[in-house]
Amino acid sequence: MSAQKPRLFIHEVAARDGFQNESVFVDTDDKIAFVDRLSASGFAKIEATSFTSPKAIPALKDAEAVMHQIARNPDVIYTVLVPNVRGAERALECNVDEVNLVMSVSETHNQANMRMTREQSFAQLAEIVAAMRDTRVALNLSLSTVFGCPMEGDIALQDVHALVDRFSQLGVAGITLCDTTGMAYPSQVNQVAKHMKAHFGHLEFTMHFHNTRGMALANTLEAIDAGIDRFDASLGGIGGCPYAPGASGNVCTEELVHMLELMGYDTGVDLDGIIDIAGSLPRLIGHDVPSQILKAGPRTRLHRPPHRQ
Amino acid sequence: MSAQKPRLFIHEVAARDGFQNESVFVDTDDKIAFVDRLSASGFAKIEATSFTSPKAIPALKDAEAVMHQIARNPDVIYTVLVPNVRGAERALECNVDEVNLVMSVSETHNQANMRMTREQSFAQLAEIVAAMRDTRVALNLSLSTVFGCPMEGDIALQDVHALVDRFSQLGVAGITLCDTTGMAYPSQVNQVAKHMKAHFGHLEFTMHFHNTRGMALANTLEAIDAGIDRFDASLGGIGGCPYAPGASGNVCTEELVHMLELMGYDTGVDLDGIIDIAGSLPRLIGHDVPSQILKAGPRTRLHRPPHRQ
Repeated sequence: MSAQKPRLFIHEVAARDGFQNESVFVDTDDKIAFVDRLSASGFAKIEATSFTSPKAIPALKDAEAVMHQIARNPDVIYTVLVPNVRGAERALECNVDEVNLVMSVSETHNQANMRMTREQSFAQLAEIVAAMRDTRVALNLSLSTVFGCPMEGDIALQDVHALVDRFSQLGVAGITLCDTTGMAYPSQVNQVAKHMKAHFGHLEFTMHFHNTRGMALANTLEAIDAGIDRFDASLGGIGGCPYAPGASGNVCTEELVHMLELMGYDTGVDLDGIIDIAGSLPRLIGHDVPSQILKAGPRTRLHRPPHRQ
Repeated sequence: MSAQKPRLFIHEVAARDGFQNESVFVDTDDKIAFVDRLSASGFAKIEATSFTSPKAIPALKDAEAVMHQIARNPDVIYTVLVPNVRGAERALECNVDEVNLVMSVSETHNQANMRMTREQSFAQLAEIVAAMRDTRVALNLSLSTVFGCPMEGDIALQDVHALVDRFSQLGVAGITLCDTTGMAYPSQVNQVAKHMKAHFGHLEFTMHFHNTRGMALANTLEAIDAGIDRFDASLGGIGGCPYAPGASGNVCTEELVHMLELMGYDTGVDLDGIIDIAGSLPRLIGHDVPSQILKAGPRTRLHRPPHRQ
């Protein structure tokens, strides 16, 4: 092991991708306190909220209040989901660092999730890109169903490639490859990631895995092997996809960081700190979270020998 | 990908390691039917029961009845846990294919789990080996806490090496390296497995992972990379360790097989069949099981697009 640990970058998405999927409304003050704690935990990026219509996603209707009242850490990139030009304008007024665009590679999933065809989505996202051109706000695209669609099944790599290429030509510099419903498997992840790194070396790729079928950490290893160094993750493992019945959530941040730090990577993230924050989630969202680390503790948390008879 | 898929061997342990940890007694007829279904599912080995004292483990007090009444598949190795010579004699009377011995690398864990020092355990297991010498029954040692002890912490690889060496000299041909409480992490697994393959090339190694901290499938990838081709797993992910508070169970067989088959390995196991068997577990043991595949279905189980408004 070299003296310099390899650096990986963790993007925390619970405040957006997690809270959005909850049936309870997390109080604005609680959201602000939650993001403020995340800001002090070493994440490279925090997806803080979404500038969608409050009618479409009432859970995040307080996007402006959250963005205005959080204490911004200059070392953190604050990104927000933006579906259209109106959302981009709202995000700009809040001085966000990055806007995150989203569409699906799968036509069926895009229509189910976005209520638009892929071409309609592309046109709408291209409008956002044009509107942001003279700003200093970064652009990222989260591409859903890259590793499979719960309705169509396998997704052709050439379809992913074609969309990445179109967004690259628009000037989008960051691409998140999303395993929306936990269909990615390790050898596939390695192949897709190597393809993307080979063909789009100028883009910054992030992997967004779900642990729906238990493979999120295994997939992470294969992505790292292929040269990926950025990973979305959600504290407590909260956040799922309403179009994938039975699915559990995003890869759990504390499980991801726990594994990567044991392996000698430098994630920059304060593991004990985020376990403590994850422990506050059941109170905020009203139910238990799927985090195994929250139940078992980190590997280093030892136990006393049991009582002898 | 070559035409010949690489072969991996799956050992199903739910009937012993799983049922042993349940507070309810699974009826003998249900156990027999359960093992019979496993026998038709393509497993290389089935740990069917334990010949321990009925007082110590009442959940498996029907070991003889189970072994006598199951329908033995000649392609399956039926192994049983045996703690002492009396247990070995009972196992022999039942015509088992293999006896599985168990002790811990950790002195503290061995004393907690076995109520003996390691040297006492070694002496007792050596007696079993001697008693089995003139039989045709195979010998396997399951070595606990190889990757960490929940009470002592890190375990020195040289301690694992020394115990493997002693059992090898006794004539034990199979060694299972057990991550008893989910402390193994991927880079460690790779290192330990490569060491064992390099120093004990004549032994047959099996990996026994727990998913306590979410890393079981990631660890499996690293073990395969190091040349390991045999894996213990438990249907539904049942079975834990009472000395690791908060811990969840063994790696889930259907999650393991699902991933490995997607990656192009030949496990020999009928995935749809074992998902169906796993689905019967909540009725047998009276509670939900941690299997993600049971909740989400395999990757290939597609869904209809949601109802449009």
